[in-house]
Amino acid sequence: MATGLSGRQDGVLDASASAAAFPLGGIGTGNVSVGARGELRDWELANRPAKGAKNPFSFFAIRVAPGGPDAAGGPDGAVPVTCVLEARHRPPHEADQGYYAGDVAGLPRLADTRLRGRYPLLELDFVDADLPVDVSLTAFTPFVPLDEDDSGIPCAVLRYRVHNPGAAAVRVSVAGSLANPVGAGPGRDVFHFPEYAGRPRNEWRAADGISGLFLTSDLPADHLRSGTVALTTGRSPGRVTAKPTWLYGAWQDGVQRFWDEFRDTGSLTPEPVASLDPEPHPHWMTRLRVGSLAVEADLAPGASHDFEFRLTWHFPNRPCGWGGNIVHDDPYLDEVVRNAYATRYDDAWAVAVDLDRRRDPLESATRAFTTALYDSTLPGPVLDAVGSNLAVIRSTTCFRLADGTFAAWEGSFDQVGSCEGTCTHVWTYAQSLAWLFPALERSARRTELLVETRADGRMNFRANQVFGSPAWDFHPVVDGQLGTVLRVYREWLLSGDDGFVHEVWPALVRAVEFAFARWDADGDNVLDGMQHNTYDIEFVGADSRAGSIFYAGLLAAAELADRVGDTGLAARWREAAAVGGERMDRLLFNGEYYQQHLADVDAVRYQFGTGVLSDQMLGQLLAHVVGLGHLFPPEHVRSAVRAVHTYNFRPSLLAHESVQRTYALGDEAGLVLCSWPRGGRPRIPFVYADEVWTGIEYQVAAHLAFEGLVDEALEIVTATRARHDGYRRSPWNEAECGNHYARSLASWALLLAWSGVRTNVADRSIAVDPPAGTQALRSFFSTGTAWGRLDLDDDGLRLHVDGGVLHLDHAVVRGAVLTTTRSGAVRPGQTLTFTP
Amino acid sequence: MATGLSGRQDGVLDASASAAAFPLGGIGTGNVSVGARGELRDWELANRPAKGAKNPFSFFAIRVAPGGPDAAGGPDGAVPVTCVLEARHRPPHEADQGYYAGDVAGLPRLADTRLRGRYPLLELDFVDADLPVDVSLTAFTPFVPLDEDDSGIPCAVLRYRVHNPGAAAVRVSVAGSLANPVGAGPGRDVFHFPEYAGRPRNEWRAADGISGLFLTSDLPADHLRSGTVALTTGRSPGRVTAKPTWLYGAWQDGVQRFWDEFRDTGSLTPEPVASLDPEPHPHWMTRLRVGSLAVEADLAPGASHDFEFRLTWHFPNRPCGWGGNIVHDDPYLDEVVRNAYATRYDDAWAVAVDLDRRRDPLESATRAFTTALYDSTLPGPVLDAVGSNLAVIRSTTCFRLADGTFAAWEGSFDQVGSCEGTCTHVWTYAQSLAWLFPALERSARRTELLVETRADGRMNFRANQVFGSPAWDFHPVVDGQLGTVLRVYREWLLSGDDGFVHEVWPALVRAVEFAFARWDADGDNVLDGMQHNTYDIEFVGADSRAGSIFYAGLLAAAELADRVGDTGLAARWREAAAVGGERMDRLLFNGEYYQQHLADVDAVRYQFGTGVLSDQMLGQLLAHVVGLGHLFPPEHVRSAVRAVHTYNFRPSLLAHESVQRTYALGDEAGLVLCSWPRGGRPRIPFVYADEVWTGIEYQVAAHLAFEGLVDEALEIVTATRARHDGYRRSPWNEAECGNHYARSLASWALLLAWSGVRTNVADRSIAVDPPAGTQALRSFFSTGTAWGRLDLDDDGLRLHVDGGVLHLDHAVVRGAVLTTTRSGAVRPGQTLTFTP
Repeated sequence: MATGLSGRQDGVLDASASAAAFPLGGIGTGNVSVGARGELRDWELANRPAKGAKNPFSFFAIRVAPGGPDAAGGPDGAVPVTCVLEARHRPPHEADQGYYAGDVAGLPRLADTRLRGRYPLLELDFVDADLPVDVSLTAFTPFVPLDEDDSGIPCAVLRYRVHNPGAAAVRVSVAGSLANPVGAGPGRDVFHFPEYAGRPRNEWRAADGISGLFLTSDLPADHLRSGTVALTTGRSPGRVTAKPTWLYGAWQDGVQRFWDEFRDTGSLTPEPVASLDPEPHPHWMTRLRVGSLAVEADLAPGASHDFEFRLTWHFPNRPCGWGGNIVHDDPYLDEVVRNAYATRYDDAWAVAVDLDRRRDPLESATRAFTTALYDSTLPGPVLDAVGSNLAVIRSTTCFRLADGTFAAWEGSFDQVGSCEGTCTHVWTYAQSLAWLFPALERSARRTELLVETRADGRMNFRANQVFGSPAWDFHPVVDGQLGTVLRVYREWLLSGDDGFVHEVWPALVRAVEFAFARWDADGDNVLDGMQHNTYDIEFVGADSRAGSIFYAGLLAAAELADRVGDTGLAARWREAAAVGGERMDRLLFNGEYYQQHLADVDAVRYQFGTGVLSDQMLGQLLAHVVGLGHLFPPEHVRSAVRAVHTYNFRPSLLAHESVQRTYALGDEAGLVLCSWPRGGRPRIPFVYADEVWTGIEYQVAAHLAFEGLVDEALEIVTATRARHDGYRRSPWNEAECGNHYARSLASWALLLAWSGVRTNVADRSIAVDPPAGTQALRSFFSTGTAWGRLDLDDDGLRLHVDGGVLHLDHAVVRGAVLTTTRSGAVRPGQTLTFTP
Repeated sequence: MATGLSGRQDGVLDASASAAAFPLGGIGTGNVSVGARGELRDWELANRPAKGAKNPFSFFAIRVAPGGPDAAGGPDGAVPVTCVLEARHRPPHEADQGYYAGDVAGLPRLADTRLRGRYPLLELDFVDADLPVDVSLTAFTPFVPLDEDDSGIPCAVLRYRVHNPGAAAVRVSVAGSLANPVGAGPGRDVFHFPEYAGRPRNEWRAADGISGLFLTSDLPADHLRSGTVALTTGRSPGRVTAKPTWLYGAWQDGVQRFWDEFRDTGSLTPEPVASLDPEPHPHWMTRLRVGSLAVEADLAPGASHDFEFRLTWHFPNRPCGWGGNIVHDDPYLDEVVRNAYATRYDDAWAVAVDLDRRRDPLESATRAFTTALYDSTLPGPVLDAVGSNLAVIRSTTCFRLADGTFAAWEGSFDQVGSCEGTCTHVWTYAQSLAWLFPALERSARRTELLVETRADGRMNFRANQVFGSPAWDFHPVVDGQLGTVLRVYREWLLSGDDGFVHEVWPALVRAVEFAFARWDADGDNVLDGMQHNTYDIEFVGADSRAGSIFYAGLLAAAELADRVGDTGLAARWREAAAVGGERMDRLLFNGEYYQQHLADVDAVRYQFGTGVLSDQMLGQLLAHVVGLGHLFPPEHVRSAVRAVHTYNFRPSLLAHESVQRTYALGDEAGLVLCSWPRGGRPRIPFVYADEVWTGIEYQVAAHLAFEGLVDEALEIVTATRARHDGYRRSPWNEAECGNHYARSLASWALLLAWSGVRTNVADRSIAVDPPAGTQALRSFFSTGTAWGRLDLDDDGLRLHVDGGVLHLDHAVVRGAVLTTTRSGAVRPGQTLTFTP
């Protein structure tokens, strides 16, 4: 497995990391990604997954010529160098028609790259001994915790920094070329150009302090594919020229003219005619319209210059329906609904203007977040897992509708969303969104409880009604339903929003009571009815996965009952959790771990019986995350999660046998979902039993860390991330049933476990209880209303606020109360200090 | 570029050669390929290109258990080993849903492979230190020169030879599993299983001396996707057991049961029920029906055993129309037409029975051909180029209709044919088919001349009327039209079939005369009208590419006129060739090479002017191939082809600039189509000018060799094949506008040039004139009616016949007449000797 990995050091990828794709784009905006060669790939701007989609002729190129006195061609005869700003293609090379013309694979490129992606910030150095300048690319889309709007700008900043290390001045041009993607559908013509609805149009525009290309179409505004795109540059970037529309025709005259002009002159001019082909044009002639924008600057010896391009887009409409793989009768799929960002921006130009005006604060916030997250004492693989999976939130997996509703798939198949309806049982694992964009999680809770919970308390675990579709009629799920209850408590901890709690309270009570009625028919507070769950089958005997979620949910509900003043319910639910938890522990704990209570494991398919289920303490992990403490005897819990590590973590999968989907294989390490060290494997175990899911690896690892088993925890996370090293799989895409799978957002629990931070906005309190052995702690923190960097050492606790407003009066560190001399609001740039 | 190449020695690939796909399947039958991991890939059985198509759960597996006295589990406790007979997957690993269940990627596999593909014969050794036996795979589809039927059997032989190197007996089982592909369309469901027309059915069958799985469907016989498939084994292969239909259902019960049973017992039993899922089944439940066939045998220490499986298939129907990318109004596309093989076989079982009965002679012929071709003194890259591209003939690019008509695409796009109608200008380059299956080339000539040549002599260069479609109405092409004339002469040389010549003669005369009328308006015997050509544009000034084809065609036509006794036409055409050729030489030869005659290279787009066109002497090469001698002053010709090598061959393409399609790039070497060393490059040169096409590399290399410039020739061929090394691209797929592109069949001219063999069936003559410096010569030869091995040394010339019947009375070697004592027919197994 070592081939291709030689260039890799400390998370730095080289150009052979073909699996790597660093996504740009905001929350609910779609994406375009940067590959390890520095190329733009996976064009997914227009509200649908489109992994592998290419936008023809969309690339950056650089020209370096003699500058200063030699600019006109000096006596030293220095020849201009012109090449595409990408590393060369690595084999295997594409077949069928070789590389298509739109790939411009036949133009000179650079030798290699060094890519360092600390999501949301990409830094990429181009490596080429023959290029007379140094070039690096910084790429990002603004990411501002707690601000879903500023983290949801449909844009990508692409800044090429060029440094002249030589003794002579050089004249440098960087040109960005882009095919107008408005109206492009998934179909391709024989040239592999997209087939378009409508006719794309390109124009040059200089207004509002910016200039560049504005790409539109004649599609009506309510057309599903209508939209606009802009490629712009900011104030004083250098000499800006453009070729707004390349020649088009039956053949590729346009790219020849573009390249010749750019190579020969370093600047661009508009084409005098649209096409050299005589009219009338045949019906099949492409509607592909490419445009280029060039920026030229002179660099004295030792000087640097930023060639910054901003790609902004605006595809306001999405289908009014999921159009997924489960529900096939969305009644309003032909109608359109607007994206949230379309309510803030009229078009891609407006996005570009806003981005230009606010770039500095947006970039500062993005960098502050990146620094706060990664400049940390937490282990590298943990930070990598936490940070890299934030891409899920800004992938096609998640979106926001015009009315502010947050909705999400489970993940994104290559060409369509996977499993619609903000699935409660998958999203129950997810944590990152709650700590970074808590308003979006509250939106999901409102949908689940106010829209999707029926009169009898049964919750539809897929939220189809956000598009007006009929309620989804399938089994209720205990993991998702009680997970939602738990998460309401989490959302309250992170907001202190009593109004929110009151709003969802009646439905929440119904949802909790439904669990008793449906899954505890014998009234012993141990769930044992037929329980559909996240494995897409039904467990028929009592198991600790569902049970732990049930009891965690009851305790969370009881906390909320206290908040709304219903002491009766609070007491009843706490009593049920205590009695039921004790009974469950007796029933299922086998002295080492919790097994399923089942007389005959083969009487019904898809059970696990005596197996070691990785998820057996899922509810306990969720309880730890919100500070509810141990649900079961702590020594049993610790023994159980240790058993999960002992039996289910495989340092190598070479001998593993799985006939299921395969996310980890060969000499890779991973945590399987279940194993049977004591025998008793069912003839047909539950359908994913032999798979390896990163979301479950993270929940187990976080739990191990919460229980103090930090080495075991780190072993799992290290394995997970080693499988996503850019060569095997993309670091920014952990797939399960779809790319960018939501369950991977369980990774945030790692940060909570390793930092040991718990906060409560209403109480204005913070508790810090890092794993034993932690000396100085430095970590990102978020309370849900403020975020920044946290430092803990012998001198005390310091909270440096980078965003939001922090109100904290109480701090408890490892059980000891600390004090502060400061009260009131702590604002960005300020630090709150607690001392012993 | 070195990564991944470390395992490569002498054309032997290891399992990381992910680009390699060795195609099995006969002429006009479709294919399935073997990849470098030993896996079956690219399932294209059913009359359409489908690169990348998977057939779920289709794989071979092996189980090795203690044998002999230990067979029941001996005291030494040796544990059975069970694994998939493939090397482990190499990164990058697939995303979206990981590897799909149908990939069974989670089962144990072997460490590596060593693959040696000498088309049509594949040999692959599995490499794994932990497997207690040695396993190798031999795979082929019978290939018998001159016999298009026996080379067109819809089958693949897959023989796993297992050797027991140990000191103890072992019991070995090999199981083949196969999803019934009948009715499968290109669509995939959420499990990535195909969507089916009709309902596939599997059955066990033991009859006609063979046994195995017979896969059918309830589709009506005239349905486009109807068909049958069989997976069988021959007589006395070992103990044969089967699980004809795996369990099916909403989840993958079937594969779990198959694997468990095979791993535990080494044999298989039928499932007692079809599905464990209660009826009624939901509408979306898969129709995927998988079956498995196992063979078990005991191997004493040191023993070997062949586990041979035969995959046969029968998809009789194809659309009655091209359904390609150029003509979009095939009127009969909804109707079906039968494949030629369907006239010989009733179903896949009949194929299996025939294959079983005739396997030995078919395999012997296949091996004799392989030996004759590759056991040769010709350079390795030349043999590699000649042999590997024979896959084109048996790819989806070529097919045969029920009435015997041969027809072909230019190539095959991944999912659809490329450029329909046996395009005359592309196929003019092709040579291999004429020497190996000359009847198919005669079929194409009949179509071109008897069907597609109009009353005025204009030939439609795409044969659409084979399906009853309207004649294609576009420019005529000089290269294709005169190329057809030339090829009629070639077909006559290879058949001596005067009846064929008489049959096409009137149309041939019209076609020749049309060239004068259309392209030589001024009557000076130099073509200078607007000439559409294989570059898909029109040259408007005189050029030597079209000119040389014209004169070669005239000389060939004159030879044919002699044969039919029209001495007047013969004289007139020879005169035109002589006069015109001299004039063209004066007009276009610039002292170094032939350029285009054009006042202003930019007045009309897509010209080449002063450029060095790689194809400038194409007609001269074609003349050499059929022994017509030099059309122009030999020193000019030699200078011209030398200039092509000098200016157009690039040892590295790092500095090459092309905005066109890209078939060679970076540090690869290749011959570009044109260059302008003297300046004068048009602002927009012809559309493929900067590309690298293997077909043109071969025609140029062959020509260089014919002219004695062997080192230059070999340099080009070596570069071409280095680009197709299995790591960069597949050795058995040279793409241009589509995979398996017909122009690559120009490679046969390399064999003709390097062996220097020319034959004439009617004259019963052979001339051998290898390049100067050739000592002993050993080569494959074909006269069109006989084939075998040729040896030339100081003792004389020996022709060992492997197939057909050889009648030769005259032999001239390097200009010297040799003599033989033998007369009459020389039959397979016999050798004809000529001595000085």
